[in-house]
Formats: sequence, structure tokens, C-alpha cells
Amino acid sequence: MSLKGLITILSPAIEAELQRQITRLDKPRTRPFYEILTYHMGWTGEGAGSEAQGKRIRPLLVLITCSACNADWKDALPAAAAVELIHNFSLVHDDIQDNSSQRRGRDTVWVKWGKPQGINAGDSLFVLSNQAILDLALTYPSEVVIKAARILHDTCLDLTCGQYLDMSYEQRTDLTTEDYWPMIGGKTAALLAACSALGSLLSEVDEVAQNAYRDFGYYLGLAFQVQDDFLGIWGDSVLTGKSAESDLVSGKKSLPVMFGLGKKGPFYRRLTEGPVHPEEVTGLAEELAAEGARLYTQESADRMTDLALQSLHRANPQGEAGEALFELANKLLNRES
Amino acid sequence: MSLKGLITILSPAIEAELQRQITRLDKPRTRPFYEILTYHMGWTGEGAGSEAQGKRIRPLLVLITCSACNADWKDALPAAAAVELIHNFSLVHDDIQDNSSQRRGRDTVWVKWGKPQGINAGDSLFVLSNQAILDLALTYPSEVVIKAARILHDTCLDLTCGQYLDMSYEQRTDLTTEDYWPMIGGKTAALLAACSALGSLLSEVDEVAQNAYRDFGYYLGLAFQVQDDFLGIWGDSVLTGKSAESDLVSGKKSLPVMFGLGKKGPFYRRLTEGPVHPEEVTGLAEELAAEGARLYTQESADRMTDLALQSLHRANPQGEAGEALFELANKLLNRES
Repeated sequence: MSLKGLITILSPAIEAELQRQITRLDKPRTRPFYEILTYHMGWTGEGAGSEAQGKRIRPLLVLITCSACNADWKDALPAAAAVELIHNFSLVHDDIQDNSSQRRGRDTVWVKWGKPQGINAGDSLFVLSNQAILDLALTYPSEVVIKAARILHDTCLDLTCGQYLDMSYEQRTDLTTEDYWPMIGGKTAALLAACSALGSLLSEVDEVAQNAYRDFGYYLGLAFQVQDDFLGIWGDSVLTGKSAESDLVSGKKSLPVMFGLGKKGPFYRRLTEGPVHPEEVTGLAEELAAEGARLYTQESADRMTDLALQSLHRANPQGEAGEALFELANKLLNRES
Repeated sequence: MSLKGLITILSPAIEAELQRQITRLDKPRTRPFYEILTYHMGWTGEGAGSEAQGKRIRPLLVLITCSACNADWKDALPAAAAVELIHNFSLVHDDIQDNSSQRRGRDTVWVKWGKPQGINAGDSLFVLSNQAILDLALTYPSEVVIKAARILHDTCLDLTCGQYLDMSYEQRTDLTTEDYWPMIGGKTAALLAACSALGSLLSEVDEVAQNAYRDFGYYLGLAFQVQDDFLGIWGDSVLTGKSAESDLVSGKKSLPVMFGLGKKGPFYRRLTEGPVHPEEVTGLAEELAAEGARLYTQESADRMTDLALQSLHRANPQGEAGEALFELANKLLNRES
């Protein structure tokens, strides 16, 4: 079965499990609170539907990994829900912290319900994730449940550290690529690492394989982010006509930007002078490339991609789900398989 | 040993355990992040010290309960830290949601580091609580650890529901005392119930006793809150000279206020007309008493206090720690023992 076929089977099960978890809040007095969450999850309200739900990459990664380890993915559904709930908790708080008014083409939670309720809605998604992971106790031995919970919580600490670093970099220009990796390792890679780690933990593969799966998720996250950072400056849509969407305008401290800052050349000097205007984007992207950032970013993406695929080979995934994992990796990294 | 003697022994152990848990964030790159938490916990920065740390009632309740069940309180320290971390997570987010600039006589976290970092600092306290509760696995069987984690997470969901209700009441005047109990049950009583439930879970007492301990904590929380609500309107310091501190001025939806709103009399009509000014406080407090709110609030406090003490008798706590539990309850409820 192809990745697409697998996704067709897994997606409804993921949505059903997420709904089951969030239903804990569906009581008469807290129904409007519950509806904040069903809106955010993309199930209700204006613009509801698959676009608003996002790709659910993380729960898919949990379940396909589990399946590639010859275990029944159905048993791992609470873990799949848990990582997606963590992801969404971080999105709700992120949007407040960044003052972002749009998410997946719709108004963000805080725009509709205010920041105080937005903070609380994010907190509740976090709680629901903690409750979801304990539901593994229905199927797995208690020792395994505790290991799974520990993976989840350790990952969340990495997330808050990554978030701290990201926010602390906002006003800084004294940064280099060395500051990039721990930030993005926490903010992006840690949760993907948790997905593949959890999927393999909930099977009978040994710890060596579990570590290989974890590494796969981690490098996949890094590779995906670095590639996204590349496109944020040199992507076609950014350079042609939609320059206002360039990371140079938003001020995002992406890998190429931090490379350029570390060079302390013309790019660095321009950035210390204040915000970049859309009409400067093409010239500044060229300058950044001339200073070596484009090559460094591309090579970094390639290196992380290689590490991800090497880790996946080491993990030795089985059957059609195993092939689907390679396909998922190649798809996320925009490579032909 | 008296309650005071017990507190003298337990307090340093609680602070040490809290510090041990929070040290997870003390790494070179995240040291300034770690220092946000050590500031909030009252250990560092301007005004650090026991005043800034608060009374640590919740961890004390965990440990004294555990001891009154004839178990070794030292083994329960991770659970004690977990509830105090949850309490502090909720305080950090509360202060942002309420725009409160002072906490325990000092600037709040968001005043010093901004709201985005404040949200993240609160999130990290929540994560650290989740990690702390799993540390019980060092001593207790996995099944017990999962039960403890479930108590903690279920409590947190109650907390977010209470917080949702509280915030949703802010602009409303169509409230009655029926709206009060679920709000305060989630916001205040649930976490105290978790404390005594956890303390007894981590011993060898049976489920009947565990439920009695949980009820004790729950009613203790309700009684304490209702008494606090009483003092917020008819307390000496509120009525004499410091009227600006009256709950009538802050607009807090306390029990007497919600009683008065439900009466739909002169008090209700005054509140629908807008904010209350300090010079109105004495007269409005008298009006509220005349409508029956003072008697209802006092009787509610008495009823909850009785239920708390009855539950504690049913739990049948043992030894000096058992006596200290009664002393703690009487002290919190301002009664002579």
C-alpha cells in the first residue's frame, strides 16, 4: 500500500481519536470552551475542513512508524493524539506570542476569543495531551506507558527551551549558525523525534531500533526546517512578486539569516540598521547568497536529509508501512523517491 | 510534634525538591530562562525570600497527608513538587490573563520579561510538573505512578475549566450562586483535593480512605475560598480605610456578589450600571448584607468547613501528622482548634 493509501486509512482514525480526547471538555457548562478547541482543530466554525486541520504529519508519523515496526497502529492512537495535541497547544500559544492573526487561512483563537481565553485554550490542549498519553494504559504495560509519558514530557521541555531561544533572538543581531541548531532542535525537531520514538516504543523493536527511529524523526525535522528556511528567502514565490512574504521582511531568524549575521559583512550591517522593506528583498537575497548563505543552507539541508535517511535505514522499517516512511520523508523533503 | 514543628522539617525538603525539579532547565544556553523561574519561585532577584515563595500549602498538604497515612513523606516529595509547580504555572498565566502587575509583593513575571516569555515560562512550569510526577517511579510501582499522574492531569483539566468559567463571568451580571460552585470547584478546590488524594495514594490506605482524603482537600478548598470571599467584602481591612481593595471595586465575581446578582434587587441594579467606586463600598456592602448575602456566605463557609472536617474524620488520619492536618485545616479556616 502506498503512503497515500495508508493516509486514507489512518486519517479518519486520527481525527476520531482527537475528537474523543477533546470530548473530555464537552460538558454543559464548558461547551463554549470546548468549541474554542473544536474551532482550532478545524472541525467547526468558519472555514472548517481539511485545510483548517493541517496535515496531521505528527500523528501519521507515530502510526506509520508503529506499523513499520510490525505492531498494530490502532493501539498507538492515544500517543498519536497526544503529539498532535502538543503541536496544537504550541501553535495556539505561538500565535499569541507572535501576535499572529491568521493560522491555516483562518482567524487565530486569540483573535476570536481574546488572549486570556487563548492562553487557557492552549493550556487545555496541553492537559488533554497529558491525559491522552495515559490512555495507552488501556493496552500497554504500565512501564511502557511511563516511558511514553517521559518521552512526551521531555520533548515538551525541549519545546519550551526552543521557544525561549527563538523569542530571545528576536531583537538580537549578534547571532551565528551555532545559535540556530539548539533553537530549531527544540522548536521543530524534538516533537518529530518524539513521534518516531513513540511509534517504535509501542512495538516490540529493541532500544537500538528505537534510537534509530528517534534520530530519523529528529533529522527529518531539522531537514524540513532548513529547507523551509531556504525557501523563505530563495523560494520562487518569495522572489517573484510576493516579496512581502520573505523571511527577510518578517525578520525571522532563519538559518541563512543567522549565517549572514555571523559573517558580519554587508548583510549584517544592513540588518542592524532596521526592518527590511519588500523592495529590498531581491537584492538582499542575492547579497546573502554571495556571502555563502545559500550554499551553506543547501548543504545543511542535504546533510540533515542524509542523516535522516541513514537513520531510517538503520531502523530497518518493515513492509508497506516501512516503504511509506521513506516516501513520507522524501515527500516532506521535496525529493523524488 | 505540632504543625509548626512539622512545617519546619518539611519546608526545606520541599524547597530542595522544587529546586531539583527546576534545575532541569539550568543549562548554559537556557540559563536566563531558568532564572525567570527561580525569580518567580521566590529564590532569586529583588525581594527573594520566604515572603516571595508563598506558604507552599499544597506540597505541605501532600506530605502531611502521606505522613498521616503512616507512609514516609520523603518518597512523596516529587508529587509535592508537582502540585506546587502546577499552582505556580497557573499563577504565572493568571497574572498575564488578569493583567496583574504584582504577586507576593513583587513584579510579576510578565512585567519583567514581557507576556510572550511569561506565557512560555508558565508552560515550562507545567512541563516540569509533569516530569516531577513521573519521578515517583523511583520509589513506587508503575501502576501507582500512573494513578498519580492521572490525578494530576484530571485536576489540571478542572483548573482550565474553572479558569474558563471565571474569565467568561467577567462581563456578565446574569449570574447566580449556582454559577459559583463549578467555577471555584475547578479554580481552587480541585488542586487541594489532588494534594490530599495524592498524599494518601502514596501510602497503603485503601480507596475509601483515599476518597475521604480527597473530599477533605476539596471542601477545605471551598471553605477557604468562601471565607476569603467573605473577607473580600466584609473584612475589617476592606471596610476600614482600604476600601479600594474591596472585591466590589475590583469587580471580582465572588460568592456574595453572585448571590446579590441572583437576587435581582438594588445591588444587582447598581452592578449593571458599571464599575463600583471606593466611596460606595461601605454602603454597597451593607446593601448586600441586607439582601441576605452575608448570612448566605457565612453559612456556606460553615457548611464547607463542616464537610471538610467530617471528611477528615472519616479519613481517620494517624499520629502527630494526623493532628497536624486538623490543625492545618483549623488554621486555614481561621478557627481555634
